[in-house]
Amino acid sequence: MRNIKLTLAYDGTDFKGWQIQPNVPTVQGHLVEVLCKITQENIWVHGAGRTDAGVHALGQVAHFKTQSQLPPAEFQRALNSLLPATIRVLHAEEVAPEFHARHHAIGKIYHYRIFRGRVLPPFIARYALHYPGTLNEDAMSEAAAHFIGEHDFTSFAGAADEHEHETNSAHAPSPVRVIYESQITRSPAPVAADYELVYRIRGRSFLRYMVRKITGTLLDVGRGRFNPSDIPALLAARDPARSGATLSPHGLFMEAVEYPPPRL
Amino acid sequence: MRNIKLTLAYDGTDFKGWQIQPNVPTVQGHLVEVLCKITQENIWVHGAGRTDAGVHALGQVAHFKTQSQLPPAEFQRALNSLLPATIRVLHAEEVAPEFHARHHAIGKIYHYRIFRGRVLPPFIARYALHYPGTLNEDAMSEAAAHFIGEHDFTSFAGAADEHEHETNSAHAPSPVRVIYESQITRSPAPVAADYELVYRIRGRSFLRYMVRKITGTLLDVGRGRFNPSDIPALLAARDPARSGATLSPHGLFMEAVEYPPPRL
Repeated sequence: MRNIKLTLAYDGTDFKGWQIQPNVPTVQGHLVEVLCKITQENIWVHGAGRTDAGVHALGQVAHFKTQSQLPPAEFQRALNSLLPATIRVLHAEEVAPEFHARHHAIGKIYHYRIFRGRVLPPFIARYALHYPGTLNEDAMSEAAAHFIGEHDFTSFAGAADEHEHETNSAHAPSPVRVIYESQITRSPAPVAADYELVYRIRGRSFLRYMVRKITGTLLDVGRGRFNPSDIPALLAARDPARSGATLSPHGLFMEAVEYPPPRL
Repeated sequence: MRNIKLTLAYDGTDFKGWQIQPNVPTVQGHLVEVLCKITQENIWVHGAGRTDAGVHALGQVAHFKTQSQLPPAEFQRALNSLLPATIRVLHAEEVAPEFHARHHAIGKIYHYRIFRGRVLPPFIARYALHYPGTLNEDAMSEAAAHFIGEHDFTSFAGAADEHEHETNSAHAPSPVRVIYESQITRSPAPVAADYELVYRIRGRSFLRYMVRKITGTLLDVGRGRFNPSDIPALLAARDPARSGATLSPHGLFMEAVEYPPPRL
């Protein structure tokens, strides 16, 4: 069996998330359907992370096993001709038989876009949260830095039964996660004069809703509901009810998945 | 009665065009519904041009009459809070009672986007045609220039009963139109390395499907089906069957509507 790795971008607007479900459009569902059509085999597609409904991806990674001898570039071409235009295979390559998109990931990068102009352009509406009000960006940056390191993220997770969502082992789920980078930056918006705040977070893995709930908490810091120095206490409280809101999925992008460099 | 002028942007993806129709989402339909709600009056909204289903706008102009004393900025705020996020009022102002968005327009600018990279990013898929093949851009530019001036555009119009679509008088429809600018330019795409071809046309007014059919013909020039010097003969033929295809609406943007400078 050959093992093919796909790098994918998708606009999450029209999908009920990554994970295949009966009778609703999902990214994994489209991929499985099209790959079975191309290969005439029963193909299963493993993704690096299960993005929720409405969340976008710039660099999701997935793999599948096949007996087909189709070159990776032909898989890419065939997939892109049969998938909806809002899912694209950016790259396809044959990888070692043991490669697993989720188990072997050593890092993931997400970002969340907040449009700051007074009127949200319709062409950005699907891709950024609109927050035109006053925000203390310095305080948000200071707060963001508190998430770096190894912490129990119970306060920034969804419901308890969803904790396991992105754990990388079959053992008892742990709410402890390691964050390498956590930063707020300004980015010029695709329209004149306005700008966006972009919150970028890089970590080993994430709990479900964690990035959206952290960003919601940072927004609360920006408008003065929390001080940056409150973050350690919020983490220590292990209580999701005390932190900020889980923001809408449409501002969230899975930017990239990181793997160890290939062995020589 | 006060007369309010609106400048609008919309993502045409989810609308069956500008013109109000029963039981389908249209831009005019949303505006009329929301304005009636805001004012508790029977408001009618006149647009500068009836964009077709799927066509986007960056600067559509419309006007409506009202007895409401709401300041224009409040109309903008109220409209943007009640309209779908894919329709935005960019500007609202009170204008002279005789101002009419369509009758007083002296020019309109449209552009059509053609993405040239090998893989069309999902976030551009709603806003540009994908054409990765070889194109002779110099020939396209040369051909584009042939449309400038006053011509009978019968060869570049939709079905005969639609000729009247954007005429500015109630008299006999004429297929003669005046084009001021017609140009192909390269534009950096919102993704690294790739670029888009943008065809921009500015004219007094347009026949229905005219911009999409001209762009389709320019694409045919680019791939060698026509020579640039064929354009005058295509115009002279007054036969829509001989020119290029009417391209998909999703690459087309109504960019701006032009009016005479206000009298002092």
